[in-house]
Amino acid sequence: MYSFANDYSEGACPKVLKALIETNDVQSAGYGVDEYSLAAADLIKQVIEHDDVDVHFITGGTPCNVLAISTLRAHEAVISCESGHINAHETGAVEATGHKIIAVKGKNGKILPQEIRDVMADHTDEHKVRPKMVFISDATELGTIYTKKELTAISEVCKEYGLYLYLDGARLGNALVATGNDLSFKDICDLTDIFYIGGTKNGAWLGEALVIKNDELKPDFRYLIKQHCSMLAKGRLIGVQFIALFRDKARAYLDNARNADIMAQALKYIFRQFSIPMYIDSSTNQIFPILENRVLEKIKSNYTVTEWGPYDKDHTIVRFVCSWATQKAAIQDFYNDLVMYVNED
Amino acid sequence: MYSFANDYSEGACPKVLKALIETNDVQSAGYGVDEYSLAAADLIKQVIEHDDVDVHFITGGTPCNVLAISTLRAHEAVISCESGHINAHETGAVEATGHKIIAVKGKNGKILPQEIRDVMADHTDEHKVRPKMVFISDATELGTIYTKKELTAISEVCKEYGLYLYLDGARLGNALVATGNDLSFKDICDLTDIFYIGGTKNGAWLGEALVIKNDELKPDFRYLIKQHCSMLAKGRLIGVQFIALFRDKARAYLDNARNADIMAQALKYIFRQFSIPMYIDSSTNQIFPILENRVLEKIKSNYTVTEWGPYDKDHTIVRFVCSWATQKAAIQDFYNDLVMYVNED
Amino acid sequence: MYSFANDYSEGACPKVLKALIETNDVQSAGYGVDEYSLAAADLIKQVIEHDDVDVHFITGGTPCNVLAISTLRAHEAVISCESGHINAHETGAVEATGHKIIAVKGKNGKILPQEIRDVMADHTDEHKVRPKMVFISDATELGTIYTKKELTAISEVCKEYGLYLYLDGARLGNALVATGNDLSFKDICDLTDIFYIGGTKNGAWLGEALVIKNDELKPDFRYLIKQHCSMLAKGRLIGVQFIALFRDKARAYLDNARNADIMAQALKYIFRQFSIPMYIDSSTNQIFPILENRVLEKIKSNYTVTEWGPYDKDHTIVRFVCSWATQKAAIQDFYNDLVMYVNED
Amino acid sequence: MYSFANDYSEGACPKVLKALIETNDVQSAGYGVDEYSLAAADLIKQVIEHDDVDVHFITGGTPCNVLAISTLRAHEAVISCESGHINAHETGAVEATGHKIIAVKGKNGKILPQEIRDVMADHTDEHKVRPKMVFISDATELGTIYTKKELTAISEVCKEYGLYLYLDGARLGNALVATGNDLSFKDICDLTDIFYIGGTKNGAWLGEALVIKNDELKPDFRYLIKQHCSMLAKGRLIGVQFIALFRDKARAYLDNARNADIMAQALKYIFRQFSIPMYIDSSTNQIFPILENRVLEKIKSNYTVTEWGPYDKDHTIVRFVCSWATQKAAIQDFYNDLVMYVNED
Repeated sequence: MYSFANDYSEGACPKVLKALIETNDVQSAGYGVDEYSLAAADLIKQVIEHDDVDVHFITGGTPCNVLAISTLRAHEAVISCESGHINAHETGAVEATGHKIIAVKGKNGKILPQEIRDVMADHTDEHKVRPKMVFISDATELGTIYTKKELTAISEVCKEYGLYLYLDGARLGNALVATGNDLSFKDICDLTDIFYIGGTKNGAWLGEALVIKNDELKPDFRYLIKQHCSMLAKGRLIGVQFIALFRDKARAYLDNARNADIMAQALKYIFRQFSIPMYIDSSTNQIFPILENRVLEKIKSNYTVTEWGPYDKDHTIVRFVCSWATQKAAIQDFYNDLVMYVNED
Repeated sequence: MYSFANDYSEGACPKVLKALIETNDVQSAGYGVDEYSLAAADLIKQVIEHDDVDVHFITGGTPCNVLAISTLRAHEAVISCESGHINAHETGAVEATGHKIIAVKGKNGKILPQEIRDVMADHTDEHKVRPKMVFISDATELGTIYTKKELTAISEVCKEYGLYLYLDGARLGNALVATGNDLSFKDICDLTDIFYIGGTKNGAWLGEALVIKNDELKPDFRYLIKQHCSMLAKGRLIGVQFIALFRDKARAYLDNARNADIMAQALKYIFRQFSIPMYIDSSTNQIFPILENRVLEKIKSNYTVTEWGPYDKDHTIVRFVCSWATQKAAIQDFYNDLVMYVNED
Repeated sequence: MYSFANDYSEGACPKVLKALIETNDVQSAGYGVDEYSLAAADLIKQVIEHDDVDVHFITGGTPCNVLAISTLRAHEAVISCESGHINAHETGAVEATGHKIIAVKGKNGKILPQEIRDVMADHTDEHKVRPKMVFISDATELGTIYTKKELTAISEVCKEYGLYLYLDGARLGNALVATGNDLSFKDICDLTDIFYIGGTKNGAWLGEALVIKNDELKPDFRYLIKQHCSMLAKGRLIGVQFIALFRDKARAYLDNARNADIMAQALKYIFRQFSIPMYIDSSTNQIFPILENRVLEKIKSNYTVTEWGPYDKDHTIVRFVCSWATQKAAIQDFYNDLVMYVNED
Repeated sequence: MYSFANDYSEGACPKVLKALIETNDVQSAGYGVDEYSLAAADLIKQVIEHDDVDVHFITGGTPCNVLAISTLRAHEAVISCESGHINAHETGAVEATGHKIIAVKGKNGKILPQEIRDVMADHTDEHKVRPKMVFISDATELGTIYTKKELTAISEVCKEYGLYLYLDGARLGNALVATGNDLSFKDICDLTDIFYIGGTKNGAWLGEALVIKNDELKPDFRYLIKQHCSMLAKGRLIGVQFIALFRDKARAYLDNARNADIMAQALKYIFRQFSIPMYIDSSTNQIFPILENRVLEKIKSNYTVTEWGPYDKDHTIVRFVCSWATQKAAIQDFYNDLVMYVNED
């Protein structure tokens, strides 16, 4: 069995693993105030070209999302696409901290500025929550990416209404190296108030770098990390990994993401050769072919994939994901297998 | 600088590191339902001699505590010593989930059965919370340990009042191998409803094994893990480590703990040679000498330690901690240094 | 200015006021365990023909909703129409207790059984919340009512999936006396697990009677009431009012509701005479005419009404509400005024 | 049976009841933005001689406490005496909103400035909560009162540490008219950041006036009221009552409190005649005689009182409370009965 189910099937990428081994026996301070974590934060500040930010290393993506939103007051709410991770796949973790998610339809996993305006027009008094933050992800949960123009438009409407803009970058690397992307790390920081750079899905064992630009969100943030179960005793574990990923202008980080995107796009190319349509046009490391159920069944005998949902009675939307660890040989094997699967009756 | 500040200064113990390296490239399922985690759970069940338990691997100790307590209903509360980790060092993480901690004085970090009875006598109607769980730790936050007789007495009073007994085992290994201990892994499971076996402080990079014996606490527990930010995408990371620690009847786990206890007790012996008294009599890997401030200042020039609090105007209570990683040479160096510090005027 | 803005503009209906005056000087126990509250609960049990229920008197409707939902475990969620009061008009009070609301479209303010099935099909593992309760209201927030057939169908799908059915009866009286209603108090209790009978909007100064039929939801409920700020020191205040409303087979309660419905339907008749269409077909005490903006402006000079939302650029959806206190003369005056408003240009 | 159990046994005082009857049929806006509530707020501002405050009318005391504390951020905590109402008698309502209560011993129900300093010295990093508010009550839960000097000292230590000072005035009237009191309404407002003036226990059916002086605590407060189940639809119900209590320089409010205090002090005088000692020296409307159990049993056959706790094996601490409604005749009857009870064998 080979898995295209997700981008967290393997352990750490070689550079990260090497760094962990090399530093294993060194003593360091606990809880993320060690020298590795400080150095990693400095590297990130250089890459995003912002010195005025706070960088915190967090155990995972859901914790980052919960923490960012936990800066809000009790009656303040966050606007998200229906497909947003916080709304769809976090077991109510945000609501568990007391905050309502106002879900809007979105388009291709991306929120539209007009949707934000509509929410604001509909929330004007104390009988409804006060929208105070917008949640977006790049790449989105559907593998799509924001253009600079799109992100700028959202950023502007947020400023207009006094909303914080938070970007979930679980797959930020995959977005930034994707075909069609015109955003840089610096742009992401310029245009948002708070965002995170995902490590877990891009070569780290675990860990994300949460970057806070807006001064209003900075005070006492380490209290929130501790309170929300997201502070590691051996905090340097994440710092060490981010040093490996972000030294040399984030070289390993971007290389990992590039491999993931290229391999997934190669898969997409293969599906197109068989005239298999895509549910959504993604240029990153997640692709969503619409497969005949009989073909899907054959694939499942040798590959682990994610069934996203039914398309019609004979077809299913399936998610294939590649990662830093996906090898060209695996793509070629899949091609050979698919030839067989499709042509058998 | 050498650190006696805590037992999480280094990375992973050699066996754990080796296991992580060897399995790094294998693909596995995400979120803790992989084969490594299942195998680790089986090893733990063998060691604790209970097959009827659920074992969950969690990112850290505070998350374990929060999760165990989050099984309670909104108005139910947990009884803890004032010195209990949940009351003293978790930034209100338990209260953040809505539950009150009823703190009692305790003695040497241990709760007394009569204190539980007193709380129950004082909480009899709906104008007060309903006590429903007792939190203890072994070893305690002060390095002390429960005897089998003491733990049995607490277990019985809990049963009498319908209280769940939860044991925080962040340093369970250190307790079980300590001089004076007469409890086994099996006893711990026999006498409690839910407990965790700490990995972070005993040789793992991160991770704890939460063991649920009481059937009432089992349903839907994975929902709680996800909701409370404590589920790793690469969940097998913890499973792999616990296999390394628990194979061969928990050999590495117990060896790690034994080294920590022996080294700390060697430190205690050294202090006694200089007639330096202990704040509390601990037989585990944390010791608490009462140091003259002038001596402490000298120690701090070469060693990182934790100042626990003032003793009187000339003395300070200081915490020294040893771990699996503490080497005999470090103890000898410290002895040599202490000779100098004490004898200098 | 005369107000058709809502059904809580006046104080208490004459019978309630009289009861409060007569009992004012009597001493009674606090916190809702007094003899008046017990007697009121008995009257309600007779009217709903269920003896096996717990009846609690609560300060308001939002508290009732929050309390009913607070019986759920942390990761359990409630399904509601988008227009449901808990989703649209309670400032995130439900989310503030940690629970996610899963909002579905509904039709005319009513939830469809298939929508419940769809939610269940989409919530199958621990990465999403577990739906555990369905919230409906009768009369709905749009003035519509459930038929016995509709409510039975919802009740059955809830049973099938192990979901609690909760009915918000803020305007239950208005539903039960409406044209087209075929449900009785007994049916409401038969078909739900928990519901409340609204007092505030039907002649009481304040107070609702929350009725719990399902034994799973009964334990320790008074703890929840106290914890959620919804227990009155002078609890008998609500009991006394419900005695006045529910003695003689709920005569005053039903009379109050009937007056409200009849007056609102008279208004509807008036609007129809002027060919003014309704946004939704309601048979209870709330009606929603679509008014030309120029007519609306004239109405607003003499009447307080609620603008529900824009219909098109020249028209607005407006809510008119009648209550136990609405007098025939007010309806006639409005008719005379409307003649003028419509005919002026 | 005559009740000395509490000060909320009867309904509303005559002036309040009259005001409710007179205004019953008037239409007003809902949710506390009506003209009565505005006028009541103005009266209160005059009495407290502060124009720069926000006044909100709230359903009860526990809601006031929860609301005041809900202005804090998630990791911020409140310091209270162990005997403080929020710590001892609110079923964890504060913790249910996520905030830890740091309980200190206090003395006679009053917090000591040094206790606040000690808490601050012990809470210095992100592994503990951040203390941000001090909760006190005047009169206290034990009937004692703060002197101006004491309150000033607490106010100063709060300012020094950046702590908000919140005063629970459930029985503020009883404090301000008590023998030995040297505080005025204006002083209370001068020396605190937020406080409430209790209505429920001093002649109102229900309702408290929450006064916010500190600008940091004012924004969006009505959102919090709604979210925490504490906003009445017929909000003017409380406004009307506070007009009756606070017109003519709070005449009725102070008269009610004075009657309560005088009657309770008369009871105290009676007990002293029989050499029955007091558990605590209170000058307000709550007194705490230490009664022989045989006498207590006899009292209980004709009077409802509150058993506060055992004193020794033969004696019990008992609470007697008087209110605006307590009549001289009741005190005389009690004297006559006590003569009998004491002198019987």
